[in-house]
Amino acid sequence: MNTSIQNCMVAQSGGPTVAINASLAGVIKGAAGCYGTVYGSVNGILGILNEHYLNLSEIMESDDNALERLIHTPAMYLGSCRFKLPDFMDDDSSYNYIFKQFEKLNIGAFFYIGGNDSMDTVLKLSEYAERIGSNVRIIGIPKTIDNDLMVTDHTPGFGSAAKYIASSLLEIAHDTFIYAVKSVTIVEIMGRDAGWLTAASALARNEYSDAPHLIYLPECNFDKDEFLTDVRALLEEHNNIIIAVSEGLHDAEGNYICAGESKEDTFGHSQLSGAGKALEYLIKDNINVKVRSVEVNVLQRCAAHLSSATDLNEAVASGEHAVAFAKQGITASMVTMNRTSNAPYTIEYGYAEIKNIANEAKSVPRAWINERGNDVTEEMVAYLLPLIQGETSISYENGLPNYMNVSHLTNKR
Amino acid sequence: MNTSIQNCMVAQSGGPTVAINASLAGVIKGAAGCYGTVYGSVNGILGILNEHYLNLSEIMESDDNALERLIHTPAMYLGSCRFKLPDFMDDDSSYNYIFKQFEKLNIGAFFYIGGNDSMDTVLKLSEYAERIGSNVRIIGIPKTIDNDLMVTDHTPGFGSAAKYIASSLLEIAHDTFIYAVKSVTIVEIMGRDAGWLTAASALARNEYSDAPHLIYLPECNFDKDEFLTDVRALLEEHNNIIIAVSEGLHDAEGNYICAGESKEDTFGHSQLSGAGKALEYLIKDNINVKVRSVEVNVLQRCAAHLSSATDLNEAVASGEHAVAFAKQGITASMVTMNRTSNAPYTIEYGYAEIKNIANEAKSVPRAWINERGNDVTEEMVAYLLPLIQGETSISYENGLPNYMNVSHLTNKR
Repeated sequence: MNTSIQNCMVAQSGGPTVAINASLAGVIKGAAGCYGTVYGSVNGILGILNEHYLNLSEIMESDDNALERLIHTPAMYLGSCRFKLPDFMDDDSSYNYIFKQFEKLNIGAFFYIGGNDSMDTVLKLSEYAERIGSNVRIIGIPKTIDNDLMVTDHTPGFGSAAKYIASSLLEIAHDTFIYAVKSVTIVEIMGRDAGWLTAASALARNEYSDAPHLIYLPECNFDKDEFLTDVRALLEEHNNIIIAVSEGLHDAEGNYICAGESKEDTFGHSQLSGAGKALEYLIKDNINVKVRSVEVNVLQRCAAHLSSATDLNEAVASGEHAVAFAKQGITASMVTMNRTSNAPYTIEYGYAEIKNIANEAKSVPRAWINERGNDVTEEMVAYLLPLIQGETSISYENGLPNYMNVSHLTNKR
Repeated sequence: MNTSIQNCMVAQSGGPTVAINASLAGVIKGAAGCYGTVYGSVNGILGILNEHYLNLSEIMESDDNALERLIHTPAMYLGSCRFKLPDFMDDDSSYNYIFKQFEKLNIGAFFYIGGNDSMDTVLKLSEYAERIGSNVRIIGIPKTIDNDLMVTDHTPGFGSAAKYIASSLLEIAHDTFIYAVKSVTIVEIMGRDAGWLTAASALARNEYSDAPHLIYLPECNFDKDEFLTDVRALLEEHNNIIIAVSEGLHDAEGNYICAGESKEDTFGHSQLSGAGKALEYLIKDNINVKVRSVEVNVLQRCAAHLSSATDLNEAVASGEHAVAFAKQGITASMVTMNRTSNAPYTIEYGYAEIKNIANEAKSVPRAWINERGNDVTEEMVAYLLPLIQGETSISYENGLPNYMNVSHLTNKR
């Protein structure tokens, strides 16, 4: 280890994606030669508070294929957390502890890969660093299947989830088309407040299939009478209707269309499920047709066996750029991707001040949803299409994907 | 077209699998040179009654890649039906019509690719053929993700579904391991009366993961007190428990395990829930732990982007053997696979009289389930493992799988 240069630390937070370890791999690649040891904090910021670290430099050196395998491993290799730092004006004890750890380990930069809630942590650590005059660079690296982070054109992790959703919709279409009897299939897709991932279902359409025939995003109010009118009209033309709905569907009064009770998590979000089930029962009650609802569930964020090469490449590059920005002295910022052209698709990497990003969410623009609120426009499709391009090949062993060993999370050795 | 040789007909029936079109491709390949035109009856046996046929020979000749693409296309290229032929002693009008069609099209053999219900059709057509002295050979080709057909070692379609289930379980394990808080995840898997596919979840276990920690098949009675005892004990050792359950879970009285309490959704319906949801509520009511249920749903039978090469190869071979058997004069039979060795894995193709197969179902032997009824044995794993070996590469276009155009099913042209 070169003691003349500083080390760096990286952690992951929030919900899983298929690309979040690709960003971790990007940090490790980018740090080679400009930082010493790359420490991984286990379970997000909690790893620092618990002094639970992995020496990622050592782990990657021990196996020639480790970095490639890491890129293709789903969810967080370092584990995650749902931990909200207190306001340091109220209580700075954890901040004090974290920066003491940084000093002890000779940390020059801290990279936090996460979504909206994680960027709140980046903001708070940045503000505290400024307050105490610390030189530790604090950089956020975006990830979320929801694609709802401000400023950046899109987020790593979204493209792979979009490819999974579009492919799955196409496969579900093949599954439903086989019977000559009328049917409606409702597919519920993740995205609490933003409909980007549900919109990606539109990419499933092709020369022989119009599915999904209806698409409902949380950016529009859901009207059950209009919905039933639209389903009835479609059943006149087609045998098998497929409908894509966001889990965050709500009516004009803002009430979620769902089954079950609203429960709140650490960050005050409602725990939603059941929009698909609710529409299933609505149709069963009003239209005499075979109906089924499918909740795609967690596989849309962890099915690493089907990922977008564009997405994984961008995730790696985001990690590499984060390191480069830190070395340039940039801090209190998040890596961004700025699209410069749709066809051919080109992006430029940049950074944006974290204070303009944290605790904000980017919705689908109303102009990218059709007037009736039951489909997306061609502009949306043009935006989405480049993000799902390219396939990745993961390695298999004994018939199963060969992912990174996460025994440090499972305590199985 | 060579008019000196007879034509043949093929149809598909029952529920989708990822391999049923591979068997169709096998029939088309096998028929080359020994039958003339291969007709495909659209929507199973109904296609004959409606005279709705595709000329598969022509379609395959029109595109060099069509046969390869057909092998990898999910669900039924020819569509399906859920149509039970009446007893011909009561009403032979449809039989009369079907065999007139065979005569008109100069059909020498009829191949029906399907599961249990479809083999009932093969049996009835065979008996009717014998009764009227018809020389049309009637051969069944097995397919079902349930793996519950008699006589054959396993069924085409099962291996791919098993690979999908095992891979998905591994990915769901990665997804759940990220949080350091105690959690239980229940994964509900298809197979109402036979637990073969749920058992395949055991293949997800590896050096760093014991998931699924519990496996419940419909071959054993489910006892909720034993279940809660087992979950509590596991939570002492592990943070994140994953449980695989068959949709057909039932208690000692034979009652299906579904949610006991009715929850009301947005529209005021009481919600009926499956086994996974029921176990979720059971844990929520009795153990203070984060709990979630995942219903894998239709993707386990149609996710052709992840299939077993062993399975698809065997499905093609089953189709080819069906044709060869018909040419040898065999009729009233189903193609079978007989395992001759586990390691190395070898099988031989054969045939069995359809009367010993139709309307029977093969359950998991009790000896392949552990004594407590919450896991499978090593014999089961040894049986399953060869079936998921090998990966297939499907072609992609514009970021999506490039499947066969099924406009004849969707009426979109």
